Amino acid sequence: MRMSDIIRRKRDRVALSPEEIRFFVRGYAAGEIPDYHAAALLMAVYLNGMTDEEMLALTTEMLESGEVLDWSDLSGRKVDKHSTGGVGDKTSLILAPIVAAAGVYVPMISGRGLGHTGGTLDKLESIPGFDVNLSAERFREVLTSTHMALAGQTGEIAPADKKLYALRDVTATVESIPLIASSILSKKLAEGIDALVFDVKVGAGAFMKSQADAQVLANTLVKIGKRAGKKVVALISNMSQPLGTHVGNTLEVIESVGVLTGQVTGDLAELSFELAAHMLVLGEVAKNLAAARRQVDEIIEKGAAFRKFQEVVAAQGGDPVALKDHSRLPGARRSETIKAKLRGVVQQIDAEGVGIAAMRLGAGRATVDAEIDYGAGVILHCKVGDRVEEGADLAGMYFNDASKREEALACLEAAFTIGDKAPAVSKLIYKIIS
Amino acid sequence: MRMSDIIRRKRDRVALSPEEIRFFVRGYAAGEIPDYHAAALLMAVYLNGMTDEEMLALTTEMLESGEVLDWSDLSGRKVDKHSTGGVGDKTSLILAPIVAAAGVYVPMISGRGLGHTGGTLDKLESIPGFDVNLSAERFREVLTSTHMALAGQTGEIAPADKKLYALRDVTATVESIPLIASSILSKKLAEGIDALVFDVKVGAGAFMKSQADAQVLANTLVKIGKRAGKKVVALISNMSQPLGTHVGNTLEVIESVGVLTGQVTGDLAELSFELAAHMLVLGEVAKNLAAARRQVDEIIEKGAAFRKFQEVVAAQGGDPVALKDHSRLPGARRSETIKAKLRGVVQQIDAEGVGIAAMRLGAGRATVDAEIDYGAGVILHCKVGDRVEEGADLAGMYFNDASKREEALACLEAAFTIGDKAPAVSKLIYKIIS
Repeated sequence: MRMSDIIRRKRDRVALSPEEIRFFVRGYAAGEIPDYHAAALLMAVYLNGMTDEEMLALTTEMLESGEVLDWSDLSGRKVDKHSTGGVGDKTSLILAPIVAAAGVYVPMISGRGLGHTGGTLDKLESIPGFDVNLSAERFREVLTSTHMALAGQTGEIAPADKKLYALRDVTATVESIPLIASSILSKKLAEGIDALVFDVKVGAGAFMKSQADAQVLANTLVKIGKRAGKKVVALISNMSQPLGTHVGNTLEVIESVGVLTGQVTGDLAELSFELAAHMLVLGEVAKNLAAARRQVDEIIEKGAAFRKFQEVVAAQGGDPVALKDHSRLPGARRSETIKAKLRGVVQQIDAEGVGIAAMRLGAGRATVDAEIDYGAGVILHCKVGDRVEEGADLAGMYFNDASKREEALACLEAAFTIGDKAPAVSKLIYKIIS
Repeated sequence: MRMSDIIRRKRDRVALSPEEIRFFVRGYAAGEIPDYHAAALLMAVYLNGMTDEEMLALTTEMLESGEVLDWSDLSGRKVDKHSTGGVGDKTSLILAPIVAAAGVYVPMISGRGLGHTGGTLDKLESIPGFDVNLSAERFREVLTSTHMALAGQTGEIAPADKKLYALRDVTATVESIPLIASSILSKKLAEGIDALVFDVKVGAGAFMKSQADAQVLANTLVKIGKRAGKKVVALISNMSQPLGTHVGNTLEVIESVGVLTGQVTGDLAELSFELAAHMLVLGEVAKNLAAARRQVDEIIEKGAAFRKFQEVVAAQGGDPVALKDHSRLPGARRSETIKAKLRGVVQQIDAEGVGIAAMRLGAGRATVDAEIDYGAGVILHCKVGDRVEEGADLAGMYFNDASKREEALACLEAAFTIGDKAPAVSKLIYKIIS
């Protein structure tokens, strides 16, 4: 087998065989196939697409290039959720304790934030003492005892995907549905799960800007995930404005605790509960979605979800008291409020703009190795559709380092659009694909 | 400017600006842009094409990456011919002396053979003493005194093209009209010529297998060559059977001498004279094609073309006597004739098969650094459309090393198809594009 022949076939719209995809992925991961071969093939895939069989083979090979976790000794279903990323998206912190409290195992492996989107690991690390770098052994212990564990990668998960992703990033081949889908699936399937719920976000603050693109990605993830032998459901959800009201690490933990204790309602609670309900169905502890929704409500009402969150925080070395006494969380010494310059209705709150403002204040990373200020961030005092008076509070900025204050302020102010008419009501969940 | 943005634009079918193409070609030639960036861009160009403006910019940048010869001190037109390559194609050895004898300068820079196609430099080197490695100074002296010079590259011609070609070769991006056209043009324009005649070959023995593809390439070469300020004509010619009857270095010199002395007629003479006539028109020594054709005939009849060939051979250190006394040329100690197994009409003589047979006998190179046996080759004793009796001679094989004799024999025998009916008469020159 020769790479130039494989590239030629994909160039000519011939579907590659599983053997050809294996040859490429293994050779590239082993450093035997040079970057220029991979770059030419990636561009041919970008422009000519892939069949389901090719995507399944690519997913499988990338998955098998690294460690695959095995929980077959734990009786009960293992279910996780994956979001394509957004601003203010802290649903993982809410749904994982709910689902674990219902008796389903949630072996959740998460990433860090980059650019305008946050990362679950960073949010968890804002809880004093919380350790996301669990050994494989410790991960197993925490998962066994609490039904959930929240960590970064243990061992090497899908190293072939990691190497290919780095190349896609510099060759303008990131935005390809077959490459996105197989990259996501190879990493999530390595968690050794039985079922997976996807939250495919669409809108200004998301990777997918149009509903059509989001729909194609969601369909692909469900189709290929099922072909890989997993139960899969995908929700397409709105990411035109930030999810919830808090953006920034400590702030998002505080808001999540609010939802887990039943004190915070609105879009964040709604989406988290709906994702959790699907996980309960796939996890086979609820017989249908209606029953699952009732079960989620009960778990919240009884305080079981919040207790589960305290339990896992304690198990992973964190300070569970900080979840109630927020003065124990890293804070911000300075704050500033932006006000409405005119009276009207909030037409739009640009999620990407709010995300960038929070990043500038220290809540996120502009580059991979930047440091995070856990206490920094933004709190929205209104959401799209709210009526505001001139001079009303629109949002608060929280920070310790004032060096980027002006940039953040400009960004945050520009994110708000206020007008006369009530904006069209847009759904939170556009579609459910299963 | 960033390469990933340039790749993205070409990926999205946006035409690149001359500045972007300059950034890429200069950066890649200088080793500042890595192979993987170039590979992704080449595949995007292969699949999405290029506008005329992009091809012109690419040609110009590759041309200017190296040395460009300058003959502006020589009064008179400088004209060359370029062929896309075929089997038995020795028209350069014939037309260059004709055109030079008419007073047009022919500064011809040629290449070596690879695979089933021969190279002009190898053919010339089969003449004892002939030196194709002329210094720039010596090339100028020979061109000035004889109106022609036949050499390999002096200095570095279009090094950016050379580097890109090597990458195209391993990334399945060779067969792209925009990339082929700009590669050819950048090298030929570096000869400092005023006009150029293209011989775009089509058929089983040629790079272009279909007339449609050949037509697109010919149109592109003419269009972009003109945009670069040159006079350009392209002929599309038949390469389904070998051109003429002799294939192999010494053998092709002998056949060329036959045409130059008026003793050999047929397809080789016809095509060579027609190409030469177009060169005389572009070289402004004939006022139209009819006059040019008469001039070519006169030059042959008077013996001026053969004398010019002897003159240039002497000027470049070769033995001019060997052109008449062929025993002074490298020969073959062994020969073998293949015979018709049945009576009928020759339907087809596969040019590629004959070329490979000659290569196996030692006339060509399977790999770039293989050695050539100048005396080896094949002589056809019939052409397509000839009637043959059972047992009649079809072709002779000439060789010194018998190690590949059987392979060559099988290849040569398989190249002939004999049948009952007369094959459809196919034209030698399909089309002239100007």
